[in-house]
Amino acid sequence: MENIYELTSIIEKDLEEACLTDTERNQIAEKINTRLAKNSIVLAQTNPVSGDVEGNARKASKWIKWANKLNVEAVIFPEMYLIGYPIGDFIDRFPIIVEENEEWLRALAKITGKVKVIIGFVQKNTDKYGKKFYNSTAVLENGKITHIIRKSLLPTYAEFNDYRHFEPAKIDSETRIININDKKAGLIICEDGWNDKDFFEKNLYRQDPVEIVVNEQHPDYLINCSSSITRAKKEQLKHNMLSFAAQKHKTPIVYVNQVGSNDNISFEGGSRVYDAEGNLIAMAKSYTEQFFIVNPFQPQQNKVYPLPKGLEKTLNSQKAFTLDHEPDLERTYLTIIQSIKDYFKKTGFKRAVLGLSGGLDSTVCATLLTDALGKENVLGISMPSKITSEESKSDAKKLAENLGINFCEIPIKEMYETTRTKFDNIFCTVQKQWNCRYKESFTNDNIQARSRAIILWGIANEFESTLPIATSDKSELYMGYATINGDMSGGFAPIADVSKTKLFALAKWLNKNRTVKNAIPEEIIAKRPGAELAINPKTQKPLLAEEALMPYEFLDEVIWRVENLQQSIFDMMESKFLYETKENITSEQKLQWLEKFFKRMSTALYKWSIMPPSPIVDARSINKAEYNQPIISSKINYKKTTLEYKISKLS
Amino acid sequence: MENIYELTSIIEKDLEEACLTDTERNQIAEKINTRLAKNSIVLAQTNPVSGDVEGNARKASKWIKWANKLNVEAVIFPEMYLIGYPIGDFIDRFPIIVEENEEWLRALAKITGKVKVIIGFVQKNTDKYGKKFYNSTAVLENGKITHIIRKSLLPTYAEFNDYRHFEPAKIDSETRIININDKKAGLIICEDGWNDKDFFEKNLYRQDPVEIVVNEQHPDYLINCSSSITRAKKEQLKHNMLSFAAQKHKTPIVYVNQVGSNDNISFEGGSRVYDAEGNLIAMAKSYTEQFFIVNPFQPQQNKVYPLPKGLEKTLNSQKAFTLDHEPDLERTYLTIIQSIKDYFKKTGFKRAVLGLSGGLDSTVCATLLTDALGKENVLGISMPSKITSEESKSDAKKLAENLGINFCEIPIKEMYETTRTKFDNIFCTVQKQWNCRYKESFTNDNIQARSRAIILWGIANEFESTLPIATSDKSELYMGYATINGDMSGGFAPIADVSKTKLFALAKWLNKNRTVKNAIPEEIIAKRPGAELAINPKTQKPLLAEEALMPYEFLDEVIWRVENLQQSIFDMMESKFLYETKENITSEQKLQWLEKFFKRMSTALYKWSIMPPSPIVDARSINKAEYNQPIISSKINYKKTTLEYKISKLS
Repeated sequence: MENIYELTSIIEKDLEEACLTDTERNQIAEKINTRLAKNSIVLAQTNPVSGDVEGNARKASKWIKWANKLNVEAVIFPEMYLIGYPIGDFIDRFPIIVEENEEWLRALAKITGKVKVIIGFVQKNTDKYGKKFYNSTAVLENGKITHIIRKSLLPTYAEFNDYRHFEPAKIDSETRIININDKKAGLIICEDGWNDKDFFEKNLYRQDPVEIVVNEQHPDYLINCSSSITRAKKEQLKHNMLSFAAQKHKTPIVYVNQVGSNDNISFEGGSRVYDAEGNLIAMAKSYTEQFFIVNPFQPQQNKVYPLPKGLEKTLNSQKAFTLDHEPDLERTYLTIIQSIKDYFKKTGFKRAVLGLSGGLDSTVCATLLTDALGKENVLGISMPSKITSEESKSDAKKLAENLGINFCEIPIKEMYETTRTKFDNIFCTVQKQWNCRYKESFTNDNIQARSRAIILWGIANEFESTLPIATSDKSELYMGYATINGDMSGGFAPIADVSKTKLFALAKWLNKNRTVKNAIPEEIIAKRPGAELAINPKTQKPLLAEEALMPYEFLDEVIWRVENLQQSIFDMMESKFLYETKENITSEQKLQWLEKFFKRMSTALYKWSIMPPSPIVDARSINKAEYNQPIISSKINYKKTTLEYKISKLS
Repeated sequence: MENIYELTSIIEKDLEEACLTDTERNQIAEKINTRLAKNSIVLAQTNPVSGDVEGNARKASKWIKWANKLNVEAVIFPEMYLIGYPIGDFIDRFPIIVEENEEWLRALAKITGKVKVIIGFVQKNTDKYGKKFYNSTAVLENGKITHIIRKSLLPTYAEFNDYRHFEPAKIDSETRIININDKKAGLIICEDGWNDKDFFEKNLYRQDPVEIVVNEQHPDYLINCSSSITRAKKEQLKHNMLSFAAQKHKTPIVYVNQVGSNDNISFEGGSRVYDAEGNLIAMAKSYTEQFFIVNPFQPQQNKVYPLPKGLEKTLNSQKAFTLDHEPDLERTYLTIIQSIKDYFKKTGFKRAVLGLSGGLDSTVCATLLTDALGKENVLGISMPSKITSEESKSDAKKLAENLGINFCEIPIKEMYETTRTKFDNIFCTVQKQWNCRYKESFTNDNIQARSRAIILWGIANEFESTLPIATSDKSELYMGYATINGDMSGGFAPIADVSKTKLFALAKWLNKNRTVKNAIPEEIIAKRPGAELAINPKTQKPLLAEEALMPYEFLDEVIWRVENLQQSIFDMMESKFLYETKENITSEQKLQWLEKFFKRMSTALYKWSIMPPSPIVDARSINKAEYNQPIISSKINYKKTTLEYKISKLS
């Protein structure tokens, strides 16, 4: 006999493809209904498109119609589902979109029956005071909008900018109770559930809406409608916090989250239920839409789908940098795949073209694109220059063969030489005027990278629905080790938030875990990274990246400490790096690398500001959707100096 | 006999260049002191660098030392002076900078005497609740920090993101009174002064700190420390509001504003004083640092420097689009010049290189760069292709001669042909794989634009302190009519917030108002814009921009209506455009242009996201420092349709 979740997977297919007849639908509904206990509800773990109100509403209407066939009490959509999340600033500039979402909300209300619909939208604020809008959730029932609950705590950190657009609802005056069958549900919206005074050491807000709704309105359980993005280590925090709150308040918590990616940010779903003792009793799949039936009062009816592999191993927060990236690799992979898929689908693109250098970055990008878009939609181009080794060329070709993607080789020698010839004349002329040539210039290196980008963008211009791919990784972007209009240019940058040591681990993981094993040639993983744009005068071989920068293991720990511990040079000099436990380095060497890091980072800010969209994956990133630093702030003092020293300098 | 302002201009020079001996300083101080009435204060209209705490503190110390020589009561710096404004997110990621600014604040306190120093800084919030920091202003006196006042209203619209970093101070509990000589000054910080319930139709915040400080703490006058950026029409709003508040509360208002540019945003200074009847009795110069002595109680002691020309003519808000750009041209010019100067200076660049096409965009850019950086620091390059007309080449050359900048001509024919030859082979190969070539491709157009960018970036790579310039204008950016890695690529984009019709007006204004008259050849202003990248098959001449897009007069009004009136297609169809009063167009034609506009705009979002830094000039812009829209939001419905229609589509 099929269980509920085998049956709902048929519903999900039908929602996607309308593949069932009405008779078949009724049969499935009947089967499910015999298996449902009272107080079952549907968590509509859905993937809305920001701004596509009509598309989102049409999808909701299909889900609602399906729910109406079942003996469930309610169907619950994520925060701001109807307009999508994030919104950026478009609701301020185009208020017509808010009207549109309010009209569609009324239209959806008309098709509701006894099954309650709980759905997020943007509500106009008609008062004389405050921001123009509320971040609201409506309850729809028997053809009408019966209740509207508004968000009180408005996050404005990292990728969040809620307070920019929304007026906070007064916590004390907001009634958050919805009667669902014979139970009272307390409805809270995302951040409203993240301010427990006992769980967090420091609180962003003074009041805790959960505490207030529990103490004053006495719900039988809590429902949290969220749009909460995936980040390294966030699952641990989320699980611990929700479980803690359920226990503390002795009430089940139902958590409904958005799934899917929008530009830089990704929602992993993971909708779930905790019982009144804080036990996890239901968990949706991650990284997929799901029509997920749960019952907060009948644990045995529910299903707990496993989290992406590895996450369960690390339920404690990470206090030190580690090279053991394994626990986060499946989540990283799934986030990037979903991100590529959704960016291409939601913007109407289909195919990707990228340069294959035989190096790690382009190799991992090609592999991820293959899995996200299908091998027939990926074109890898080897574009060797004079410096490119035979191994690089053959590695690139071998990779393309293993992946089964389209491939061609286009030497850029003539393009390089034509440009170079041009430059010789120009430089002589300009030198007479400015007389300030660099002794060590990057012109030649960059001509190569930019000629390659011309080829990729040309193909994108000539063939429909094709995007060129930027292959820069996080470690190199921190160092500004990427060419403007070269390798950092593209329509999308899949690995811009993956550090180099993690990329090595991901390459090995891909070889082990993809259907086609070992698609990435061992040689590519074994070789030390280098851009093959310049020759190292000392070795007379192509310059290696670690020679130009610093050891990647050291570099990645600096990045990790900046993002996760907010450390200064002083703090880092006081701490022992993982690299130092393996290699003997002097503190002069360490200080030199740290100073180099901050100096290079300061001049990389401009490059960060013109990066193409790219998935945020790590706990923190330099993605402009979550981190912004003025380019002119290059004179920041990242060291710590004492007050006395400073005063002496003033007088 | 020299007046106060002739004498303070010597102080300003001394602050900049330390050009005086101590004896000379004392002589000047003595002369000024004999001219000063009681209750004189110094408005320190200064240009801080974001993040350069030490540099800002050292500058402040010089200003404080000068003030100490004078019989003034206080020296007042702008909001957040010590750390600079804007800060982006760096105070969260690098809390060491906040420690640094608190240490420098204590160091500055040590050098204070009887002259009070009022200075903006970032203060740590040490409570268990709330954001990590306060936006604060300290009072320093006799070696100590005697008082700290914190900002309550935290703007989060357009370029502002205060609430992202700061905890709002509770309005009722904040004491805002500082005793300055025998007067009580009520100190408010920027936005705290922008919430008058009678002046604004709708208020962003419930409480008005000005009303509360006036009614409960009874100040003799108000001081507003600001970092308020320049925008079209903002001077009118600012003047009317400050004058209104002074009259309403029957109290003088002293307004101190930052000057200078940081990345995309520009402060114009314009520090000033209103008397208790709302009359403007003192006004600093705009767009320059000024050691500005004012006296709120002795109107005759003060000086009112004129605003940039034209602003005084338009003290009413603009309700309709106009082609009369004249009243805003001097402000536009000064904003862009200051922006170029400060971006180059604060990032350490000195020289600019740009392509000169003989068209309007590059012509205006070259002229502005000449004025900002000096003609010896500008290099214009004519890079003709096969399509480039003889006129374009000679116009470019003539312009360079008139401006006196460095110039050379580099034909890109060979680069284009080498790339084109490459492409012929590739496209055949790829076509076999993908079989989906565009009938009308932009590949050829773009090879030209990208080859030119390779030349410009190559020169920047080879010569020290040189930035290439992106010449895209606002009208074309809205339409996505700019080539990625081509004309929209550069280190800085001077005219990205200037629409085409305004650019024409600016070109004429430059010819009339620069020291060297008529530097821009008449032919350039007279010709109709076109990228000269493609041939129009109908006319067999280079395709004109208006043929590819729509008439610029119409386009610029659409942009104006989107930014200033937040109109939808429906609203615009209901309104009469200026263009319609001149030309007979059918409503089908109008609708077609409007639909084209929104369609092109939707696909231009990606290009906006990778634009280089550029000065915000207009009332509203698409600059990413103030406007952000998800790239995947391309399915927004910019039309207005009725609810009934929608419901019918749902069922």
